[in-house]
Amino acid sequence: MVYFDHNATTPLCAEAREAWLKASEEAWMNPSSPYPAASRVRHALDAAREELAGHLDARPEEIVFTSGATEAANLVLGHFARQREQTLLIGATEHPCIRESAQSGVAKVDILPVQPQPDGRIAPLKLAERLRAKPRPALVAIMAANNETGTENDVEAIARVCREAQVPFLCDAVQWIGKRPLGALRHADGLLGSAHKFGGPKGVGFARLGAALGDLRGARGGQQEGGRRGGTENYPGIAAMVAALRSAQATVEDAQAIATREAWRSRFLERVRGLGFGVAGSEAANLWNTVLLLPPLGERMRWVMRLAKRGFAVSTGSACSTGRESASAVLQALGIPDATARRAIRISSGRESSESDWQALADAIECILADLSAEDAPATVVRI
Amino acid sequence: MVYFDHNATTPLCAEAREAWLKASEEAWMNPSSPYPAASRVRHALDAAREELAGHLDARPEEIVFTSGATEAANLVLGHFARQREQTLLIGATEHPCIRESAQSGVAKVDILPVQPQPDGRIAPLKLAERLRAKPRPALVAIMAANNETGTENDVEAIARVCREAQVPFLCDAVQWIGKRPLGALRHADGLLGSAHKFGGPKGVGFARLGAALGDLRGARGGQQEGGRRGGTENYPGIAAMVAALRSAQATVEDAQAIATREAWRSRFLERVRGLGFGVAGSEAANLWNTVLLLPPLGERMRWVMRLAKRGFAVSTGSACSTGRESASAVLQALGIPDATARRAIRISSGRESSESDWQALADAIECILADLSAEDAPATVVRI
Repeated sequence: MVYFDHNATTPLCAEAREAWLKASEEAWMNPSSPYPAASRVRHALDAAREELAGHLDARPEEIVFTSGATEAANLVLGHFARQREQTLLIGATEHPCIRESAQSGVAKVDILPVQPQPDGRIAPLKLAERLRAKPRPALVAIMAANNETGTENDVEAIARVCREAQVPFLCDAVQWIGKRPLGALRHADGLLGSAHKFGGPKGVGFARLGAALGDLRGARGGQQEGGRRGGTENYPGIAAMVAALRSAQATVEDAQAIATREAWRSRFLERVRGLGFGVAGSEAANLWNTVLLLPPLGERMRWVMRLAKRGFAVSTGSACSTGRESASAVLQALGIPDATARRAIRISSGRESSESDWQALADAIECILADLSAEDAPATVVRI
Repeated sequence: MVYFDHNATTPLCAEAREAWLKASEEAWMNPSSPYPAASRVRHALDAAREELAGHLDARPEEIVFTSGATEAANLVLGHFARQREQTLLIGATEHPCIRESAQSGVAKVDILPVQPQPDGRIAPLKLAERLRAKPRPALVAIMAANNETGTENDVEAIARVCREAQVPFLCDAVQWIGKRPLGALRHADGLLGSAHKFGGPKGVGFARLGAALGDLRGARGGQQEGGRRGGTENYPGIAAMVAALRSAQATVEDAQAIATREAWRSRFLERVRGLGFGVAGSEAANLWNTVLLLPPLGERMRWVMRLAKRGFAVSTGSACSTGRESASAVLQALGIPDATARRAIRISSGRESSESDWQALADAIECILADLSAEDAPATVVRI
C-alpha cells in the first residue's frame, strides 16, 4: 500500500517508537511521586518540555501537554466560548475542533471568509478591517495550513494584524508542524499540535499558551501542567512526540529536501491538470505534501476505492468528516460547487514518500480516469 | 527498587507493550479514513470496545475512550457542573478529578461525609436519607475504592439506593479495576477507568456512560466515540489498555490468588501494628494492595526518603497532591488529626509484588522506626 493519507495520520517513526519503549521501560513512574526514582521522570518530562519549547521558540511554562490537538483546541476555545458577551473570530476553513469548540458555549462566533478558489487563504487586510469593526473579538483563531487543501495562511501578516489590534491570535499548527519550519508561527499567541501528524504516537499533543491568552484551564483534578491540565502525565507519549518532532525537523529545515518534494508535487500536478483535474486551494502557498484533487468525473468514494484496489491510500478530505454525506465545509468556504466538491479526493504524502510514489499515483489516476470515462460513456447510470 | 506505589501508576505489562507495538505496526491508520486498510483499524477498534464492554458488563456504545480517568471525570462532571440549579452529591473522599470537575461550573456541590476513622466508607443509609431530602441531586459520584486508603465502598448498596431514588450514580473505578472483579460495579450508571493503573499505558482511559447519565459530550471537533469525544482514536493505546485489563482480570478473578495477597497484606499489618503504627481506613473492606500507614513518629517525607534509601518506593498519599503543603483531604474527611495525617505514607503493591516484598518492607520500616526514635530521643529538633 502506497500511503497518501499523511494528513489523517502518519506511521510511527522509528525514533518515536524507540523513545516510547525506552520511557515505558525506564521512566514509567508517576512524575508526581515523591521518591528520587520518580523525580528522575519529572526531570525527563521537564527536559522534553524544554526541547519542545525550543522548537516552538517558546518558554517551557507556556507548553501544556494534552492528548492531542482536539483537546488542546477545546482547552483554549472552550474557555473563551464560556464567556458571555464575547465574540470569537475564526477562519472559514478551520478544523471542526476549532469551529465546534468555539461554538460550544455562550460566546458569539463570527466566521471570517477566505479568498475564493483558487486561493483559500485569509486575507490579512480583510482581517485588519474586521478587527477595526465592532464588536472587537476576544480571540482570533486561524490555522497555519489547511488539513484538506494544504493551503498556507500568511501567519506573519495575520499575527502582525492581531498584535496591532491587541487581539490574541490562536494558530492551529497541526498540519504545519513537521512539514515546515516554525517561521512566523513563533508570533502567534497560541499554537496547537498533534504528535500523530508528524510521526509521533496517537493520544499526545500540546498547546503553547502565550501570556496574551490569559489563564486557561482544561481538565480539572490535579496540579499537573502548572494546574492547567490534570491527569498523570503521559511521559512515554510525550518523549515519543518530541523524538518524532526532532526527527521531522531535520528534514523540514533542509531547504533542499523540501524544494525537492515541492518539485515532485508540482510534476504530479502538471500531469493531472493535463488530464483535466482541478486542484482546490492556493497555487502560490501550499504544503509540499498536500493536493486536494477535483476530478473531472467520478464520485469521491469511487476514486478512493479504485485507488485502493491499485494499492494507494487516499482520502476524501478530512478523516474526521468521513462518512458524513455533506460535502466538505472547506470546499464550500472556497465557493467550490457542491457537484465538484463531491468528487474531491485528498492526497497527502509523507517525508518518506518518493518521486516514484507520486508518479505511480499519477499513472493510477490516469488509468482510472480512462476506465471511468469508458464505463460512464454508454450509460448515464452511475455505477459504484 | 521494590515498588510499592502502584496506586500512583503501574509499570507497563508485557501484554500491553506487545499490543501497543503490534497496533503501532499494523493498525496505525486513521480508523475514520475511507479505504479498506483503515476500515480494518475501525474493526479492530470496535473489537476492543466490545471486549472492554464485556469486562464491564456494558453495551459497546456505552464506552467512550478517553485520555484517562481525569478526562473521563471532566466529561461527565463538567457536563453536570454546567447546569444551573442542579446539585451534585459527591463523597467526601473522592479524587480531585471528581471534586474539582464537579466544582468547575455553576451547579451546587454537596459533599456526603464518610464514616470516621477507622472506616472511611459512605454509609448507604446516610446516602438514602440525603436522597430523600431537598434538593434532590442530579448526580451522585462515589468511588469504588479510595486511592489513598484503599477503602472499598459498598457499591451494590449505593447503586441500589441511587436506583430507588432515581438519581444517576457515577462510580470512579480507577483503583478497583485490575484489583477486584467487576461485581456490583455493573450496577453503576457510569464508570471511570484509567489504563496506567492496571498495567496499561499512560494517556488512555475510558468512561462507561449508561443511558441514565443522559447525552454527554466531551471534546468537540469530530464524530469519534459516537460524537461524544472528538479526536483521532488512539487505537494502539486502546488495544494496550484492553490487553492489560485482560491480563489483570486473570489474577483478579482467581479468588485464591487474591486471598493469598490479602493474607500477605494482613501479615504486614500485624507486624506494623505491633510497632505502634496506625492504619487509615476500613478494617473490614480494603483493597488487597493498599495500606495507608500512620507512623507513630516521623514526618511523611522523612519516611519516604528513608525507605527510598533502603530501596522501597512508597508515596505520601495521592501522587496528584504531592508537593502540596496541606495534609490529605481524604484523611481530613476521616477525621484523622492533622499531626497524624502529616506522617501518613501510602503503600500500594501490585500483582507481581511477593510476600517477601511485604516482609522486607516491614523489616525496613522496623529499622527506620528504630533509627528515628534514637535520633529524635536526645533532642526535640526535627532533622530531615
